[in-house]
Amino acid sequence: MSYEIEVTLAESRKAKPNVNELAFGTCFTDHMFMMDYTPETGWHHPRIVPYAPISLDPAAVVFHYGQAVFEGMKAYRTKEDKILLFRPEKNMERLNLSNERLSIPPVNETFLVEAIKKLVSIEKEWVPADEGTSLYIRPFIIATEPYLGVRPARTYTFIVILSPVGAYYAEGINPVSIYVENNYVRAVKGGTGHTKTSGNYAASFKAQEEAQKHGCAQVLWLDGVEKAYIEEVGSMNVFFKVNGEVWTPALNGSILAGVTRDSVIQLLKEWNIPVKEKRISIEELYAAYTDGTLEEAFGTGTAAVISPIGSLKWNDKNLVINGGESGSLSMKIYDTICGIQTGEKEDPFGWTVEAE
Amino acid sequence: MSYEIEVTLAESRKAKPNVNELAFGTCFTDHMFMMDYTPETGWHHPRIVPYAPISLDPAAVVFHYGQAVFEGMKAYRTKEDKILLFRPEKNMERLNLSNERLSIPPVNETFLVEAIKKLVSIEKEWVPADEGTSLYIRPFIIATEPYLGVRPARTYTFIVILSPVGAYYAEGINPVSIYVENNYVRAVKGGTGHTKTSGNYAASFKAQEEAQKHGCAQVLWLDGVEKAYIEEVGSMNVFFKVNGEVWTPALNGSILAGVTRDSVIQLLKEWNIPVKEKRISIEELYAAYTDGTLEEAFGTGTAAVISPIGSLKWNDKNLVINGGESGSLSMKIYDTICGIQTGEKEDPFGWTVEAE
Repeated sequence: MSYEIEVTLAESRKAKPNVNELAFGTCFTDHMFMMDYTPETGWHHPRIVPYAPISLDPAAVVFHYGQAVFEGMKAYRTKEDKILLFRPEKNMERLNLSNERLSIPPVNETFLVEAIKKLVSIEKEWVPADEGTSLYIRPFIIATEPYLGVRPARTYTFIVILSPVGAYYAEGINPVSIYVENNYVRAVKGGTGHTKTSGNYAASFKAQEEAQKHGCAQVLWLDGVEKAYIEEVGSMNVFFKVNGEVWTPALNGSILAGVTRDSVIQLLKEWNIPVKEKRISIEELYAAYTDGTLEEAFGTGTAAVISPIGSLKWNDKNLVINGGESGSLSMKIYDTICGIQTGEKEDPFGWTVEAE
Repeated sequence: MSYEIEVTLAESRKAKPNVNELAFGTCFTDHMFMMDYTPETGWHHPRIVPYAPISLDPAAVVFHYGQAVFEGMKAYRTKEDKILLFRPEKNMERLNLSNERLSIPPVNETFLVEAIKKLVSIEKEWVPADEGTSLYIRPFIIATEPYLGVRPARTYTFIVILSPVGAYYAEGINPVSIYVENNYVRAVKGGTGHTKTSGNYAASFKAQEEAQKHGCAQVLWLDGVEKAYIEEVGSMNVFFKVNGEVWTPALNGSILAGVTRDSVIQLLKEWNIPVKEKRISIEELYAAYTDGTLEEAFGTGTAAVISPIGSLKWNDKNLVINGGESGSLSMKIYDTICGIQTGEKEDPFGWTVEAE
């Protein structure tokens, strides 16, 4: 395909909002990136165009058979007004893993990192400057062919939209209560839990409502087979500090390989803190809690970076972790990753990439 | 909501195709039904409008989190030129079951059956007359709110599109080869397998490709927990005739409650043929095969009605059923249901409904 990106600038620009008054994911910038796929020409016509509604045949496969994948990443403004992306190549690599599972044709990862950098450069003014703020980047692919037979579509559109977001922890980090879910299942080996496909998320809404009914912010997902082993928390990976060691569920085919998860593991290794990717049963975690060795728990993901867990509701038990306070290791990881993302701390891993 | 359906007729009409030359689900009629949902007014503005592309914000929840459900049903033309629907109230009932699981607001089932009848009446000329042909009806709901937070959308659109379809068995019924899938999983208890949500289908494409690589038309899905018990075949329910009895997997929370499945069970009971809804392991089926009591196997669904299974590939075994021929019970069920659907046979169950 031609790697020339056609650029059509918007005739007028929207006013920039006060991002700290915005709900996440409700405000979008002036432009978006698009490209199309047909079997004859492959991915083609990469373009940056004004942000606008897209028009699809009502029979488009994405509406009926959910053939869609996405990624989530962020751009940060440094004190020197540079714009940094955090490990964008990891997101494009994972996008292709999702594509493979969902029978969507692969994309050129290197080209798309460049395309995203170009889009972010054009929208540079939309990257907010306040502490904790960022520009959320949402690449996604939808199947566009109008066809009701049950088979992969022949045509697709790849789109990147951008949304300025306020500080996740505008009022300081508050550890959350988590509900251990025994009925609903997020994913199972042989399914799509290890991918970022749209259907995984709609399937999780019901459990989230259940958690909220129990006064909890999110769900702790157990495995779909034995309902005994910990998988994820909400749409984040999960870590536990037990007796000086850090545990996280091993990637087993139904857990998403989070970019933040990977970054946390690398940091812990760098700091010589023992980290184990292993199968963790809720019983084993409860045993650590009762013998007093469960020291910290936190979720990891692009939106929050680190989300400390203050308590776990499991059947009639309520496990209060670290007195319901954010743990010191959780906070050290949070400060380090955020520092690297915003250019305030050294980046020994080469994680950040400048957008132009 | 107002139950007055606003009708805007198309200014020109498309030429009717020769349906027997059409691929399934590629040609759509002149009009579609739509209505919208907002939290303030509920479902509102029911309307029949010219078939046309729909315009959505690129941040619409359906593209990112797959919050979408659908149904599939058919209208048939009788010899007297009446148009019959087959058990449409069952489809609307199931739509609400899907809605409940996917956190989509419920619809008024009775009103929607009337709306579908009205749409089909307006498109009456599109219902083909040749034997085996029909007008496929696809109601579906998509989440339209532009919002990237992970929670149910606040706005939805319900749409019904119509597609004339040729005879499923234009060249006579040919039993298919089925591949017993050991790796990919369709659904698990606690998930969404019992609903018609879009994500279930995209997740199944990969296994379908795998089946085709093995020279098979479709996949036999085993349960996601033990990978031992039979669930569905492709996107159909499955039945086995063993030693004069008919077995079908019991609805266990991960199997779709097919309308054709229910109709087959009712017919068998009417005919005093023993029918058991039970857990069926692939081992048990293989034992029946080896002792010569596996007499017939067939899938059931709206598209094919009955799809006889000629053989099952299970690891290194190839179970040829009934000499690879359609069984006599399979054919009797097929003839009876098709006869009722097209008004050629008596309808003792009251399954058919005239569209005006």
